[in-house]
Amino acid sequence: MSDLTQGSTAFRSHDDLGEARRTVPGYRLGDPALPPSPVTLEELELLKKTLLLTEEDVRYLRMAGAVMQPQIEAILDVWYGFVGAHPHLIRYFSNKADGTPNADYLARVRARFGQWIVDTTNADYDQAWLDYQHEIGLRHTRAAKNRTDDAPSVDQVNFRYLIAFIVPISATVEPFLAQGQHSPDDVRKMHAAWTKSVVLQTILWSYPYVRDGEF
Amino acid sequence: MSDLTQGSTAFRSHDDLGEARRTVPGYRLGDPALPPSPVTLEELELLKKTLLLTEEDVRYLRMAGAVMQPQIEAILDVWYGFVGAHPHLIRYFSNKADGTPNADYLARVRARFGQWIVDTTNADYDQAWLDYQHEIGLRHTRAAKNRTDDAPSVDQVNFRYLIAFIVPISATVEPFLAQGQHSPDDVRKMHAAWTKSVVLQTILWSYPYVRDGEF
Repeated sequence: MSDLTQGSTAFRSHDDLGEARRTVPGYRLGDPALPPSPVTLEELELLKKTLLLTEEDVRYLRMAGAVMQPQIEAILDVWYGFVGAHPHLIRYFSNKADGTPNADYLARVRARFGQWIVDTTNADYDQAWLDYQHEIGLRHTRAAKNRTDDAPSVDQVNFRYLIAFIVPISATVEPFLAQGQHSPDDVRKMHAAWTKSVVLQTILWSYPYVRDGEF
Repeated sequence: MSDLTQGSTAFRSHDDLGEARRTVPGYRLGDPALPPSPVTLEELELLKKTLLLTEEDVRYLRMAGAVMQPQIEAILDVWYGFVGAHPHLIRYFSNKADGTPNADYLARVRARFGQWIVDTTNADYDQAWLDYQHEIGLRHTRAAKNRTDDAPSVDQVNFRYLIAFIVPISATVEPFLAQGQHSPDDVRKMHAAWTKSVVLQTILWSYPYVRDGEF
């Protein structure tokens, strides 16, 4: 599966989102043309409270970002290795016609996934961030999967795996966080903050899967 | 909020589910009259793989159960205290007519929640367990909320809080797990196994919220 684990994108800081939009295929954080999220900033604040996501977590996410940034390709290797090792997961990146993995689609998503690590550690939970979360959610559903990358793949990512991915996306970063020069307590707090952010984003990505009026 | 934090149910081991069904109001694990879950055992196994939920986790869940069982009321106090401290959460246990918390409804759910801790640490992921997960999910939705307890409460728990609760239900158990006579590494593994199980159950509870064909 070595073809799944290549990547050479230069990921961009949040001071340079315009450049990220030029270099990362299909990347749209901060694009003023994105439609507004159906979730309000007030609802987002209540979700953050429910998730115990505080200003301290935001600080630990920034710390995590500094530790993770130089390791992004290695982290993506782990995630792509995990997906590639499971037929029930790689199918979402495969050609609908014959079930073979689509290398171009995998590469384009990989570049966004790398930038997503940067974004997760830098998020400021404003309207632009909220709007892009909704766009990311849509890209997993029948409404918009494949469209961004013109990929001839299956029609949707089944909802259950969207939520299930909270666990591998959270568990697998811990050894990478431990590679920084921080105390075990700081590693624990970076990891907890990362997990909260992943759960928060997963909730927002779920919106288009949920029946009208039940979100 | 002291009226939220009372409880005196004797929680039952899995050798005695019939007795639990007699003593815990509305509790139905193992009830052969429950309709089958729309999720298959094969789909459940793929979810466990995606969540990295292994036999080792099952062993650590059993260990966690032994540590948590004598502390169930204290754990429920923390959870009910958290819900009670947030108007956007306590509303799901409140009377629809005037927004006041419904003590009887809170008490009945609390008894099931305590038994749920036992069940989470003892789960064997068989058809009976799967069927009851679906019933639990339904009880959060417009289809069946309030019915079990004849409660005059709001019509549904909004989906976003079902997923968000993964974080407090996971984070708050760690200090309780540390109260046992186990090493920090065992505490970490018990906590990880607990979190995986909570995510797995949350996925299954989500089924009735998700649009047809997208789960």
